[in-house]
Amino acid sequence: MNMYNIISKTKKRIELEKDEIFWLINSYVEGKVPDYQMSAWLMAVCFNSLTQKETLYLTQAMRDSGEKLDMSCIDGITADKHSTGGVGDKTTLIVAPVAAACGVKMPKMSGRGLGHTGGTIDKLESIPGFNPCIDYSTFTDIVNKTGFAIVSQSGNLVPADKKIYALRDTTATVDSIPLICSSIMSKKLALGADCIILDVKSGSGAFMKNEQDARSLASEMVSIAKLAGKKCRALITDMDEPLGSCIGNSLEITEAVEILRGRQKGRLYDLCIELAANVIDTVLCTGLDAARTAAKTSIENSSALEIFIKTLKLQGGDVSFIDDYNIINRAAQKYEVISENSGYISHIDSELIGLSCVELGAGRKVKESSIDSTAGIVINKHKGDFVESGDVIMTLYTSSQCDLSKIAEMALSAVSFSKEQICAGSIVLDIVQ
Amino acid sequence: MNMYNIISKTKKRIELEKDEIFWLINSYVEGKVPDYQMSAWLMAVCFNSLTQKETLYLTQAMRDSGEKLDMSCIDGITADKHSTGGVGDKTTLIVAPVAAACGVKMPKMSGRGLGHTGGTIDKLESIPGFNPCIDYSTFTDIVNKTGFAIVSQSGNLVPADKKIYALRDTTATVDSIPLICSSIMSKKLALGADCIILDVKSGSGAFMKNEQDARSLASEMVSIAKLAGKKCRALITDMDEPLGSCIGNSLEITEAVEILRGRQKGRLYDLCIELAANVIDTVLCTGLDAARTAAKTSIENSSALEIFIKTLKLQGGDVSFIDDYNIINRAAQKYEVISENSGYISHIDSELIGLSCVELGAGRKVKESSIDSTAGIVINKHKGDFVESGDVIMTLYTSSQCDLSKIAEMALSAVSFSKEQICAGSIVLDIVQ
Repeated sequence: MNMYNIISKTKKRIELEKDEIFWLINSYVEGKVPDYQMSAWLMAVCFNSLTQKETLYLTQAMRDSGEKLDMSCIDGITADKHSTGGVGDKTTLIVAPVAAACGVKMPKMSGRGLGHTGGTIDKLESIPGFNPCIDYSTFTDIVNKTGFAIVSQSGNLVPADKKIYALRDTTATVDSIPLICSSIMSKKLALGADCIILDVKSGSGAFMKNEQDARSLASEMVSIAKLAGKKCRALITDMDEPLGSCIGNSLEITEAVEILRGRQKGRLYDLCIELAANVIDTVLCTGLDAARTAAKTSIENSSALEIFIKTLKLQGGDVSFIDDYNIINRAAQKYEVISENSGYISHIDSELIGLSCVELGAGRKVKESSIDSTAGIVINKHKGDFVESGDVIMTLYTSSQCDLSKIAEMALSAVSFSKEQICAGSIVLDIVQ
Repeated sequence: MNMYNIISKTKKRIELEKDEIFWLINSYVEGKVPDYQMSAWLMAVCFNSLTQKETLYLTQAMRDSGEKLDMSCIDGITADKHSTGGVGDKTTLIVAPVAAACGVKMPKMSGRGLGHTGGTIDKLESIPGFNPCIDYSTFTDIVNKTGFAIVSQSGNLVPADKKIYALRDTTATVDSIPLICSSIMSKKLALGADCIILDVKSGSGAFMKNEQDARSLASEMVSIAKLAGKKCRALITDMDEPLGSCIGNSLEITEAVEILRGRQKGRLYDLCIELAANVIDTVLCTGLDAARTAAKTSIENSSALEIFIKTLKLQGGDVSFIDDYNIINRAAQKYEVISENSGYISHIDSELIGLSCVELGAGRKVKESSIDSTAGIVINKHKGDFVESGDVIMTLYTSSQCDLSKIAEMALSAVSFSKEQICAGSIVLDIVQ
């Protein structure tokens, strides 16, 4: 077996054999296939795609390239939820306790943020004392006790993805459905949960800029998960404006608590209920309607919030912020962004809002950056809202040194207006199963 | 300027600017752009091709990556001839003295062979004493005296091509017309001759397997040469069987002498006359018919042979072999390949014949191999010839240790037979100018 032939076959759209794909991934991880051959192959994949069989083998080969978790010591059926990345996406913090309150076990492994999207672990670390680096047995113990726990990603999980992703990132080979699919699904499969619910974002702030691409990616991921023996469902959701009103680490924690308290409704709440209902229905086969009712009830009767608090405590978190948000929301500066236009908001570019948050200190430009947990943006006016010139449209928060008026200008440039009334539309566009 | 954007533009079929292409080539030669980004770009070029403008800039950037020769100290108009590589191709040894005899100056730089095709320098080195490594002023002096001289390729000429070709060779990115074109033409332009005549081979033994691809490559090369300020013409020629009757280093030298003596006619002779006539017409604007007559006359009156002998002597060669071919054709073993079939020969696969010669010791498997100058194959029966079972179809020669019966089998497998009479057809398929 040699890499030249493998590149050549993919270039000519000849299907690779299972053993060729496993050889390719193992040899690359071991350093026997050089980067320059791998990047040529990845570019050929961008042009010619891979068959479903090839994508399955690629996902499995990547899954098997490192450590795999064993969830068998968790009592009950386990579920995992994955989002393809959105601005303001704090759904894990809500869906996990809601699903747990309804009898699902959710052992979650989450990442840190890079670029314009934030990471769940960064958000949780704005809670004093919270420890995302607990060991495996503590992790599974907490899941058995409360129904969910969240740890940060282990270094030995799917090393093939780390190495390939770094190469794709510098060779313009990111936007390929089989490559995105294998990258996401290899990690989900290595985590070992029984059911996987995917939230595939579509829109300007998402990786998939239109619904058709999002649907293709969702179908491919669901098929691969099923072929690998997992229950799986994907929601295609709208990312044509940031999710919820708060973007930034501590701000998002308090927004999640507001949802869990039942005080905030709207698109973020709707999405969380739909995601949780799909988790519950997939795991417990209750039917979607009963699952929706159960999810809503867990918020109304505070059982989800209680689980959230219990897990935070077991992971070392000081939960006094639950009764006084100022304990974590203590940004040194606040800046109101005033609209010069009047009209209906037709669109808020999530990527620009995400990048404005990075400028405020809420995110990382490079892996090594530290972050300001108090920094972020509160969106005061949403898509569909009518705005008068002079209205406060957003509020910026930061404890870092930065040029607030310049960032305000950038954030404001994310907003488009229309003279016509705009309907925000449903946040869940479709379910693929 | 950065490589990510350059890869991304080519991937999206957005035309690169001149300064981007020069930056790309210079940065790659300087080691600032890594191989893994270059190979991703090369693969994107294989899929999306390049525009003519981009190919021109690429060729010029490669030309400018190293040393360039100055032909201004040569009296008269200079011409260069290039073949895309064929098995048994000794046309340079005939065309250069013929054109020189007709008043053209041909300063030739040639390479060594690798793989199934031989190199002109290897062939000349089978002549005792011949020195292909003469310095620049000796080289131009000889051209001024006799009309032509042949040196081996300098190490500092077009280093970008050396580095890029090595990468293409391991990443399945060889078969792209703009990449082949820029590789060939950057070297031709760096050599600095006023006129360039190209021999683009088409057929099983050639790089371009069909006439249409050969024509595309020829058109692209002629256009690029003209845009770079050179006179240029390309002949599309048939490589559906090896060229001439002899393949192997000393064997090809004696076949060239036979042609220059006017003793051998046929397809090789026809091709040499056409190539020389196009060189003469391009340089001296005589019209093609007059150029053909002049070329033929230079053979009939031995003026071309005299120039050939004079140049060999000035480059240190012992020319006594001209009167006794056994001085150089002294292979230790001879093996007759007998046909088991009868019928008309419909096709002789040049690549298989070339590879059989490599097995006999006539060529290199890797750059470092030494070669047996006496090894090779004489083809006794050609395309269109009728063969009886039991006839000698080829004769193998070698002074090396090798399994002759196995090589005979390989060489024989190159020959296809037909019950119908076959017409060999014209060797020159078209002229592109």
